[in-house]
Amino acid sequence: MDEIVDEHINHGYTTDKAAYLRRLKRVEGQVRGIARMVDEDKYCIDILTQVAAVNKALHAVSLGLVEDHIAHCVVGAAHESEATGNPEIVAAKVKEATDAIGRLLR
Amino acid sequence: MDEIVDEHINHGYTTDKAAYLRRLKRVEGQVRGIARMVDEDKYCIDILTQVAAVNKALHAVSLGLVEDHIAHCVVGAAHESEATGNPEIVAAKVKEATDAIGRLLR
Amino acid sequence: MDEIVDEHINHGYTTDKAAYLRRLKRVEGQVRGIARMVDEDKYCIDILTQVAAVNKALHAVSLGLVEDHIAHCVVGAAHESEATGNPEIVAAKVKEATDAIGRLLR
Amino acid sequence: MDEIVDEHINHGYTTDKAAYLRRLKRVEGQVRGIARMVDEDKYCIDILTQVAAVNKALHAVSLGLVEDHIAHCVVGAAHESEATGNPEIVAAKVKEATDAIGRLLR
Repeated sequence: MDEIVDEHINHGYTTDKAAYLRRLKRVEGQVRGIARMVDEDKYCIDILTQVAAVNKALHAVSLGLVEDHIAHCVVGAAHESEATGNPEIVAAKVKEATDAIGRLLR
Repeated sequence: MDEIVDEHINHGYTTDKAAYLRRLKRVEGQVRGIARMVDEDKYCIDILTQVAAVNKALHAVSLGLVEDHIAHCVVGAAHESEATGNPEIVAAKVKEATDAIGRLLR
Repeated sequence: MDEIVDEHINHGYTTDKAAYLRRLKRVEGQVRGIARMVDEDKYCIDILTQVAAVNKALHAVSLGLVEDHIAHCVVGAAHESEATGNPEIVAAKVKEATDAIGRLLR
Repeated sequence: MDEIVDEHINHGYTTDKAAYLRRLKRVEGQVRGIARMVDEDKYCIDILTQVAAVNKALHAVSLGLVEDHIAHCVVGAAHESEATGNPEIVAAKVKEATDAIGRLLR
């Protein structure tokens, strides 16, 4: 059965897909590393330092996705709004993007 | 060869070790899930929502470690300072904990 | 001498200017309130709770400004890029917006 | 009528009170400056940059208060617990401190 993929086949991040996958692989390894430190009774502060490093790595991934999304999906919606004369298209896309940014800021 | 472990065999988190390992395992799975979403061209906003969820899970792990560390290592240093009459012991431990909290706040 | 104002006379936030000014006035009052608590030797935790409240209020102001900026300036640049055939205009605007979001995430 | 002040007359931050008041005064001025920028139709990104600067200043104030609180109130509770044989005293103080840190992390 064909995997049901999102109708937006092409997203802003698609061109950097390999880079994102590498970075996420590294984050996954860092999280596993933190678990190993807990398992090996490492010092709490050293573990917290690694958690902060994972936060930073995820922060960079999020920011890349936000930039790609605005540059691709929001800008695409801007053109669609202009072509159709319907400002709601881009307004909804901007709101959606801002809400996602808001969740990251929390 | 004996695995060189930290001389602080017992940390605040040691009693909750199994819970931390479960939570970190889940975070690891969430990160893998995000990579899968990227690989399957899922919509950017849905991916960002999952990244925010990982941030939240890591946030909870960090806070647990901070509480355990203060309750165990900082309080232990307070008693050591009192017993030895050397206030530097707890002062250094408090500074170390605050710096770790600062890295998480960033 | 006329106050040199930004050539972008109209920003996304211009329509909500009064609301932003009210919110910022309230934040200013909250910060003054925190200073008064310090001056009156209030309990540290209560002060920290108020600082967290100011963070939250500023968080909401930032998010509003981000949404207005994307909806107005970035979308405007998208149309300008399309009209002039120069994709650099919107690319630069997206990068600028993402960098600003990055500074907020820190 | 004497202003009812917190029975904890002396807090960790009391010795640095003047410094905290100066920093909070500066933050108050920064917030007023942001309002002026909005009033004068300055560019959104420049305003967001100033909001990020206020976040950073508040971040530093919070961290200072956290350090003072742990060093003074939590360590004091540790001694009180030891003197009275009642571990609940410090456990409650640690939980209270961690909850305050959690609110800052959000």
